Amino acid sequence: MPGPRGNAVIGQSGGPTAVINRSFVGAIIEARKHTEIEEFWGALHGIQGMLEDQYVPLFKQPSFVLDQIARTPAAALGSVRKKPSQEECRRIFESFKKRSVRYFFYIGGNDSAETAHVINDFAQDESYDLRVVHIPKTIDNDLLVTDHCPGYGSAARYVACAFLGDKEDNRALKGVKINICMGRNAGFLTAASTLARQYPKDGPHLVYLPEAPFDLDRFLGDVDGVIREYGRALIAVSEGINVEGNANVGPDAKPTYWSQTFSGWVSVDLPEKYRGEESGKVETDSHGNVQLSGSGTLGDVLAALVTSSLGAKRVRADTLGYPQRSFPLSVSETDAREAQMVGVDAILAATQANFDSGSLAIRRIEGLGEYRSETFITPLTSVQRQTKRFPTEWIQDGNNVDERLFRTYAEPLVGELPMTGRFVQAVY
Amino acid sequence: MPGPRGNAVIGQSGGPTAVINRSFVGAIIEARKHTEIEEFWGALHGIQGMLEDQYVPLFKQPSFVLDQIARTPAAALGSVRKKPSQEECRRIFESFKKRSVRYFFYIGGNDSAETAHVINDFAQDESYDLRVVHIPKTIDNDLLVTDHCPGYGSAARYVACAFLGDKEDNRALKGVKINICMGRNAGFLTAASTLARQYPKDGPHLVYLPEAPFDLDRFLGDVDGVIREYGRALIAVSEGINVEGNANVGPDAKPTYWSQTFSGWVSVDLPEKYRGEESGKVETDSHGNVQLSGSGTLGDVLAALVTSSLGAKRVRADTLGYPQRSFPLSVSETDAREAQMVGVDAILAATQANFDSGSLAIRRIEGLGEYRSETFITPLTSVQRQTKRFPTEWIQDGNNVDERLFRTYAEPLVGELPMTGRFVQAVY
Repeated sequence: MPGPRGNAVIGQSGGPTAVINRSFVGAIIEARKHTEIEEFWGALHGIQGMLEDQYVPLFKQPSFVLDQIARTPAAALGSVRKKPSQEECRRIFESFKKRSVRYFFYIGGNDSAETAHVINDFAQDESYDLRVVHIPKTIDNDLLVTDHCPGYGSAARYVACAFLGDKEDNRALKGVKINICMGRNAGFLTAASTLARQYPKDGPHLVYLPEAPFDLDRFLGDVDGVIREYGRALIAVSEGINVEGNANVGPDAKPTYWSQTFSGWVSVDLPEKYRGEESGKVETDSHGNVQLSGSGTLGDVLAALVTSSLGAKRVRADTLGYPQRSFPLSVSETDAREAQMVGVDAILAATQANFDSGSLAIRRIEGLGEYRSETFITPLTSVQRQTKRFPTEWIQDGNNVDERLFRTYAEPLVGELPMTGRFVQAVY
Repeated sequence: MPGPRGNAVIGQSGGPTAVINRSFVGAIIEARKHTEIEEFWGALHGIQGMLEDQYVPLFKQPSFVLDQIARTPAAALGSVRKKPSQEECRRIFESFKKRSVRYFFYIGGNDSAETAHVINDFAQDESYDLRVVHIPKTIDNDLLVTDHCPGYGSAARYVACAFLGDKEDNRALKGVKINICMGRNAGFLTAASTLARQYPKDGPHLVYLPEAPFDLDRFLGDVDGVIREYGRALIAVSEGINVEGNANVGPDAKPTYWSQTFSGWVSVDLPEKYRGEESGKVETDSHGNVQLSGSGTLGDVLAALVTSSLGAKRVRADTLGYPQRSFPLSVSETDAREAQMVGVDAILAATQANFDSGSLAIRRIEGLGEYRSETFITPLTSVQRQTKRFPTEWIQDGNNVDERLFRTYAEPLVGELPMTGRFVQAVY
């Protein structure tokens, strides 16, 4: 028996995705086959449940429940955005010791990898025999080392399909449409909008990623040019567009986000009786991330600028919002399969002889003529906190992506899209 | 041969839907079987194309193109929001006479029915033999007479699925989430959010429709109560919530929309150089409708009120936006079939002996133990301009819908939803 005999704990952390529960269920199904794992506990809301000793017994769950949970968006165990302090680590290890926990699996992004690393360091300092595996998940696709992240393919499929519908809408009722996409520091999700292009003149006509500097005058000039050419414009904008472009900045850089600049231009004058102490506060989580998603300000101000400055008609903005990470009907088959694979492989890795800790990563198996992938282990330190950026060589003119390079990368992850129709001898 | 020999024109009008092209293609396929229709012309952008004599020859389109177009969201011919003046009618009839047009089909909502009626009246005044059929379509589901409207089932399926993902998201990372749904004057689309409920405590916990009066203090009290009970809240809000509730007001009523009140509370201070003459104008179309969709203001201000007034944490708002009417992966099978049916039946009706004009409507065939429907013809005047409201007896306490009554009505139209999973002996 290569791994130590004992119990295992798994938790989910960070923003939910449409397929994170597949990794979770993959791990449960595989763990059942390994006799050295005696009990498998699911921590409710990740670190939070571990602090409060709140666990679900996973081996007791019937197969039909696991099947349903695997297909359910978000995080069945509940999620959390929290980095444990040393004092909190001490309490977690009290609980681990009491429960004879020898395996710890944490599903999440780069912040969750940091948490896994903190837990692993604490175990080493305490000379406590614990095997720690970070299981990757993020719709932003911004983890280092791995080719791509589980969760991205499905979120990208949502974005591509939203633009697929919207490119037809924009053609049917001409106007300027701006869609704000998630991805605070990496442009992969916004770039997925370009997969919607199927015919000449199809939108999105302009694509703005956080990696490229975003300049307002340049933007308005771009939009004006597209309106003059097509009589309409469909535009994809990342929530993370910023003044400098963040292609080459480290994890502690604080870019000047346009969303924050615009928030300063907008004032909400609530009637006196509704004003509380909380008004106007900027929210951050305990990893120090500024909260951007869910706000219509970025899109609304860009739309106001286009209307006001260019005199354009029918200017609208949508913020694509949470459906990007949780819409149940846009799951990519490849993404679902790989999400399950990283869950299974996390158990396989952890129960190997001489395994210590690490993060699962995915690489493509080249030369097969079709898309195939496999996992490998990379050190937690190679993944934690840092952010992978959209490759600058895939960005064109600061307002578009190189479609050939990006499609080669993304299409296998997103899957085939519905094909829109055009009249023969199209006249408009 | 029951109908006059001649040519036919078809147009699409109003907001696009995911299935409007199925009605369009259904009409083409059926028209091919009727020898009295010699040529079938598609008017580009509805009335606009008829004014500019811009038509696509539809019988020349190959079957594979029609198949693709039927599956394409939005309006293949292009759409328009325009009511023709008498002078414009005169120009349209010049074009009709030149082209020997004897059949006119117009796919759209109550405004499009009004346009069809104007065209029909003009033909009668001119003693010009023209058969006019309005083919219903609207995601709002607000046409009178018909049991429901093609386009609604798919839009409702989108809303239900967006909430299905979001109820899991809200459970995984607790907070207050407000989703703004389309439906300016009718609550059917917002009510579809309740189809996402599958387990006790599932959201949406509060549902606000335009038909019920919306009071801010009452709303904040409702939200506070839900947070105290569940530690979180998922809330569905119609874009059309207003002060009085519009259950019993006519087509010319001007409700006091909260979205407009809130717009007055929000000021955007654009830098001088970006300020143009267009800033701050309220847009209306030529039917007099105020433009609401695409703006994040309603959700953002409601979120600010909840944060500020209740001191709630993690308050977010999404405006579900255009994906409601154009997302390609949430088409309801029933909706797709019925959209095709109204297109086919419009041709069948128009080519009957003694047909004059009318609008297609749908009724349920009762007593079969399964959902079935059929069409019938109703006068254009019974549909035009007026709006069907969500039944007040289906509204509960002003902040919810009667789930049993609404599900009986809506489930057959929306189709089965994915089933989310729960642990046995759930502990949270």
